[in-house]
Amino acid sequence: MKAASSLSQTEPEASLEDRFRATRQLSEALVAPLSDADATIQSMPDTSPAKWHLAHTTWFLETFLLRDHLAGYTRYDDRWPFLFNSYYESEGARHARAARGMLSRPSLDEVLAWRSHVNEAITPLLGRPDLTSLIELGIQHEQQHQELLLTDIKHALWSNPLGFAYLDGGEGRTVRLSASPEWHEHPGGIARIGHEGPGFAYDNEGPAHRVLLEPFALAGGLVTTRAWDEFIADGGYRAAKLWLSDGWAWVQRENISAPLYWRDGEHFILSGWRERDPDAPVTHISYYEADAFATWAGLRLPTEFEWEAIGRGHSAAEGNQLDEAASVEPDGSDSLFGGCWQWTRSAYLPYPRFRPVSGAVGEYNGKFMSGQFVLKGASCATPRGHSRATYRNFFYPHQRWQFTGLRLAKDL
Amino acid sequence: MKAASSLSQTEPEASLEDRFRATRQLSEALVAPLSDADATIQSMPDTSPAKWHLAHTTWFLETFLLRDHLAGYTRYDDRWPFLFNSYYESEGARHARAARGMLSRPSLDEVLAWRSHVNEAITPLLGRPDLTSLIELGIQHEQQHQELLLTDIKHALWSNPLGFAYLDGGEGRTVRLSASPEWHEHPGGIARIGHEGPGFAYDNEGPAHRVLLEPFALAGGLVTTRAWDEFIADGGYRAAKLWLSDGWAWVQRENISAPLYWRDGEHFILSGWRERDPDAPVTHISYYEADAFATWAGLRLPTEFEWEAIGRGHSAAEGNQLDEAASVEPDGSDSLFGGCWQWTRSAYLPYPRFRPVSGAVGEYNGKFMSGQFVLKGASCATPRGHSRATYRNFFYPHQRWQFTGLRLAKDL
Amino acid sequence: MKAASSLSQTEPEASLEDRFRATRQLSEALVAPLSDADATIQSMPDTSPAKWHLAHTTWFLETFLLRDHLAGYTRYDDRWPFLFNSYYESEGARHARAARGMLSRPSLDEVLAWRSHVNEAITPLLGRPDLTSLIELGIQHEQQHQELLLTDIKHALWSNPLGFAYLDGGEGRTVRLSASPEWHEHPGGIARIGHEGPGFAYDNEGPAHRVLLEPFALAGGLVTTRAWDEFIADGGYRAAKLWLSDGWAWVQRENISAPLYWRDGEHFILSGWRERDPDAPVTHISYYEADAFATWAGLRLPTEFEWEAIGRGHSAAEGNQLDEAASVEPDGSDSLFGGCWQWTRSAYLPYPRFRPVSGAVGEYNGKFMSGQFVLKGASCATPRGHSRATYRNFFYPHQRWQFTGLRLAKDL
Amino acid sequence: MKAASSLSQTEPEASLEDRFRATRQLSEALVAPLSDADATIQSMPDTSPAKWHLAHTTWFLETFLLRDHLAGYTRYDDRWPFLFNSYYESEGARHARAARGMLSRPSLDEVLAWRSHVNEAITPLLGRPDLTSLIELGIQHEQQHQELLLTDIKHALWSNPLGFAYLDGGEGRTVRLSASPEWHEHPGGIARIGHEGPGFAYDNEGPAHRVLLEPFALAGGLVTTRAWDEFIADGGYRAAKLWLSDGWAWVQRENISAPLYWRDGEHFILSGWRERDPDAPVTHISYYEADAFATWAGLRLPTEFEWEAIGRGHSAAEGNQLDEAASVEPDGSDSLFGGCWQWTRSAYLPYPRFRPVSGAVGEYNGKFMSGQFVLKGASCATPRGHSRATYRNFFYPHQRWQFTGLRLAKDL
Repeated sequence: MKAASSLSQTEPEASLEDRFRATRQLSEALVAPLSDADATIQSMPDTSPAKWHLAHTTWFLETFLLRDHLAGYTRYDDRWPFLFNSYYESEGARHARAARGMLSRPSLDEVLAWRSHVNEAITPLLGRPDLTSLIELGIQHEQQHQELLLTDIKHALWSNPLGFAYLDGGEGRTVRLSASPEWHEHPGGIARIGHEGPGFAYDNEGPAHRVLLEPFALAGGLVTTRAWDEFIADGGYRAAKLWLSDGWAWVQRENISAPLYWRDGEHFILSGWRERDPDAPVTHISYYEADAFATWAGLRLPTEFEWEAIGRGHSAAEGNQLDEAASVEPDGSDSLFGGCWQWTRSAYLPYPRFRPVSGAVGEYNGKFMSGQFVLKGASCATPRGHSRATYRNFFYPHQRWQFTGLRLAKDL
Repeated sequence: MKAASSLSQTEPEASLEDRFRATRQLSEALVAPLSDADATIQSMPDTSPAKWHLAHTTWFLETFLLRDHLAGYTRYDDRWPFLFNSYYESEGARHARAARGMLSRPSLDEVLAWRSHVNEAITPLLGRPDLTSLIELGIQHEQQHQELLLTDIKHALWSNPLGFAYLDGGEGRTVRLSASPEWHEHPGGIARIGHEGPGFAYDNEGPAHRVLLEPFALAGGLVTTRAWDEFIADGGYRAAKLWLSDGWAWVQRENISAPLYWRDGEHFILSGWRERDPDAPVTHISYYEADAFATWAGLRLPTEFEWEAIGRGHSAAEGNQLDEAASVEPDGSDSLFGGCWQWTRSAYLPYPRFRPVSGAVGEYNGKFMSGQFVLKGASCATPRGHSRATYRNFFYPHQRWQFTGLRLAKDL
Repeated sequence: MKAASSLSQTEPEASLEDRFRATRQLSEALVAPLSDADATIQSMPDTSPAKWHLAHTTWFLETFLLRDHLAGYTRYDDRWPFLFNSYYESEGARHARAARGMLSRPSLDEVLAWRSHVNEAITPLLGRPDLTSLIELGIQHEQQHQELLLTDIKHALWSNPLGFAYLDGGEGRTVRLSASPEWHEHPGGIARIGHEGPGFAYDNEGPAHRVLLEPFALAGGLVTTRAWDEFIADGGYRAAKLWLSDGWAWVQRENISAPLYWRDGEHFILSGWRERDPDAPVTHISYYEADAFATWAGLRLPTEFEWEAIGRGHSAAEGNQLDEAASVEPDGSDSLFGGCWQWTRSAYLPYPRFRPVSGAVGEYNGKFMSGQFVLKGASCATPRGHSRATYRNFFYPHQRWQFTGLRLAKDL
Repeated sequence: MKAASSLSQTEPEASLEDRFRATRQLSEALVAPLSDADATIQSMPDTSPAKWHLAHTTWFLETFLLRDHLAGYTRYDDRWPFLFNSYYESEGARHARAARGMLSRPSLDEVLAWRSHVNEAITPLLGRPDLTSLIELGIQHEQQHQELLLTDIKHALWSNPLGFAYLDGGEGRTVRLSASPEWHEHPGGIARIGHEGPGFAYDNEGPAHRVLLEPFALAGGLVTTRAWDEFIADGGYRAAKLWLSDGWAWVQRENISAPLYWRDGEHFILSGWRERDPDAPVTHISYYEADAFATWAGLRLPTEFEWEAIGRGHSAAEGNQLDEAASVEPDGSDSLFGGCWQWTRSAYLPYPRFRPVSGAVGEYNGKFMSGQFVLKGASCATPRGHSRATYRNFFYPHQRWQFTGLRLAKDL
């Protein structure tokens, strides 16, 4: 199997059409190592089959661009919207999320053919100025699903006792930066938060507004697997007093004693079972684990506002991200963005004066604003150009199949 | 049955000892209408038997005051801490929460005898200056359980198809204030949040700090049952687009179509099944319902900071609270505090520089800081003197057996 | 607490009215040691509160005798049939079985008052020849519930970590017979099975018919706790090959490693936690355990027909049964009937030409004929006179809160 | 897609080797219409992926023939026994049954290559007289899985909302025999039951023994879909009094209102969604439904002994069975065996003097003898030659994804 490493992804400054084409191609390159069966199975209700991601992103374009804006377009197959709508209530009934793994048909090849059809049919719309933001949303939406596709296929392959690899080789990049001993200090005061100005952003990144910060410092490096091994050795998973109450209940109920994908000195990565690198960032941890670790370390998680205040001075492009898929799985890069998504202690809630946009597309972000926490940064599986300091990723506190890690903070 | 209405509760300015005695007495008065069996049953895992509340508050005093500070004290019964510890991991193993209703023994009378014993034994400690804050915590802790005792027994009696009343009569207070058409406006800017200065507060109310507010307005009145009936009539419970995603899943899964305790034109109150008063505040709603209603109304819930900024100018003593238990169940009083706890859109999270106090008592609040939302105000079942503008009550977004309602807000 | 030991129960040859009165009195004597709270709680869905048994047997009489046959009778309380109907679909909707423990009202005293009322009101019917069989059914029905009341209260008291005793003293009878080394042999051939002739029997005991038996032998004694300890010591609960597939799944899922109510060298009996007697019959085992033990011993369970063929020559009255409640909990008596119900390898199915009787009373037995196994004999908690060789008790193979044990068989 | 219709299956009198080869070939022909993904998915815990059936039957041969009897044989892949052992405890740990659908690797092609390898390697053993019965068991075992493969793939394809067909065309055989109005009468008396003499039989079909029958009659035809429509129209699924207690609970809990695979006037068959034929036998019903129907009709189900007593005079070869896969799905054939498996009212229990054979192969049948009911006959998906009058198929009373139907009986 050989992944998308030779794919030359265009730069953000490329034209909208070029970026659209490159994004669509990248999705297809990502499934190249997969068989029809690999792309069909679903290993838990949180994940979706790879084939489903390919189809859902296509449904999104066919629905909100072709159907709504291309006169005379007829659906490629009338029966498929029922299968590939994710959660848009306003788009009608849909297949149960937990049963996505039952769809052995349409096959991977049929879905790829549908993609080609839509890619072709959409051509006349790509130059229309009134559709620029919708096309941009289509690109961004597909990029999100590229990351999910990778985390979901990782989980699926790990669920097979034989532990098949998604990628050959997997030696990854040899560059390894030691974890920075430095802290990013901030004097506190009023900070500007949220997206403003040109460039794409999701609705949940605005409106831009001010928040008041106390003086704090943000760690220069991510927590490493070496530090995590110390936490385990010190009984971290057995010490109730380190944990949030819900977290402790989760540890007990699920028998948690290590990050997801760990066994003995190994972890399962997209290249299969490999020895762990003590200097690489720990990943695949839940919010509960991140919070317990911070308590154990006598420190804390940052808020999303603290992270953003520091992050504004850094470039998201520093990360080792998905344009070189051979390096998927984080190494020890010290970029603020690189390696993994970083849990913050901020609940995912609306910013002041937030209003969802109207129409089905408005279901995009706002309706998930309860029970989840914000993550900042980006991961090794995030497509290049898909993150920024204002980006708000969000997951439930028990979830850990994403590339999730942590960066500590402290009061000054 | 006749409740605690004639109990003369002492004023906040009374001595610590007097307030301690009055609080202990009020708990006992609250169970006067209950049989041994009423006080034993548990109608869902969220609730506890009335007898258990009486015993747990006594365990709290016996453990953190008598055992820790009275030389030579021996436990009344060595086997009972296992039964009546709630969630203090550092105090050792304990009976499963969901099995509290299995404890037909010790009987209500035996628990009351234990209470007398502890009330007596504690006398020498009540004057010790070094224990003032611990005794105050004992009082406040017991007051919290008084409210829970009432909400839990309400749920237990409602679970009986025959719908027995906790209180006779129940005509309540005849005073009824119309819902205020006015809004409390706030110009925005930096506000001081959190407890400071003298007087008791829980650890989660501090440290005091500043937040930045945008201009907003807070409704003068609570949402009434009349307004809620309109929401229902307009299909509020069937319109997915009004709901948070988790809320909609909850509505579907639990077949929710009205507040808890409603049937036809009636609701179940502590005096039994009664016709609903259209001018009374709606209560027993979840966060999900509160949020959906606000969306339907084109408005929103306040943040906890907005509520507190307005609430600082109001006296908690205005509410129709538990010192007159005959009036339990809210009428239409317009006090900011009165009637019911009010959902805010703020997740329950630590304030900047928050640190739990050390020792078992430190498990009090901090470990619950994930997944819950803050409620402000007080309810008809809150003991007089137990609330204040900085008070942070918290529950999960699906819970609604407390006296929970809502007060709307809007941007200016 | 003092139980029903001084109650002089009338003999089977007593008049119907005397037997009716004595049966009703025995039920009340059995709850004498219980508080209102003890009688209210329900420790698992399989069991019912003691108070519920008292009420349900009274509902049975009020419905099928007073309502149906006493002109002008009006219900004691119209709301109670909803609470105390067990499973008679034809009698309308009813309270959920798993929620019987929510009924703190009516109180034990109120239920006892209802019993007195019904006992009085029924007097004119007790001499009516047309009602003889219905009254007899009322007696038998109540006797069944007496046994359930005892097994259910045992489970409820055991569920309390403090392990309260139902009975004082509990030294029981001192008589102890050694386990008989003899076998009851049977030459095989055609045997007569099922009830015929005078005397009460349930519908499921007929029609009488013939079956063909192979030569076999039935053990003279019940399996003892000493033998069971050997089974455990030999790894019986960890050897998959001894178990039925469903049984092994149950052992794994429920972490089963001993009979119910065992801990270390003790077991919980109605007199509380006591040392186990190695010569007493093992009780509180599931069918799965009985079958695995028999496999381990190189023998097998008898069929219900084999048991009955031997049992016809024995008197049920030999057992140490419920007329002396102080002796509840089996000793080592060798009576074929005594000590405990004995699992057979016969599924509980209809006899040839079986037809349920018509009307609500016909729901009595027939509708349970799937998934359960037949038990023969009687237990220490069976009222005297309530068993006979044709009696077919039945439970699901995983259930073991009844006084269930085993008697081995072998082929000749 | 084109199925196995042209496959010429050899006759029972063919040589063991020929029958072995033909059986292996038929399995492969059955998956010819399936994609890798179709063969990978698992639509419920009761079913297994088609690929898994292919692999498991191969594991069976590799383990009990090649490993145990071919000197020097080394496993094709050491890691696969963990994946493809079904339930043989003595063969060690194994993959969880409910997670069989996670195995996207090995692929269908890899499994087919393994099959070829084993088919080749086994050649020297096929002529060894000491292995005849083990090879015969291998054939019979694979035939059982052929039927399961078809019922499982039917369920999987039905789980896809698009309802893909396994077979093209599907007009099936045009022959249709009207349901016979005649009854097979039996005078009662002693009947010989169980397998004896030459020819293969499973251990659970013996030992042969005698049973005593009452006079009875067995219906000449199977119950048809027309009759079932009348049952539905008469409120059969809503009348509690027709149902066993467990059955009624199942109907309520699962919202059952028709046989599996029915919608409006159609049913899902291996050729996709088709109009129902009123004269075809009803299939895909549970024991509970069969029993309720019989009660509604004023008749009953036969015992397994009654069925066998009649069935001994009929040839299993009359059925429309799997050698012509194009006719899969029953038509109205009146053969005693044909069309579908027929529920009996006999629990699946050991015959007198039954002993499982020793070794792993002894786990074959005996350990399932609790909680299930016996079915007699054969279905349209049963390989030709795989049934006989003594055959005992067995399933739990709620299961209905097999081709299950019913034939009524009555007392004479």
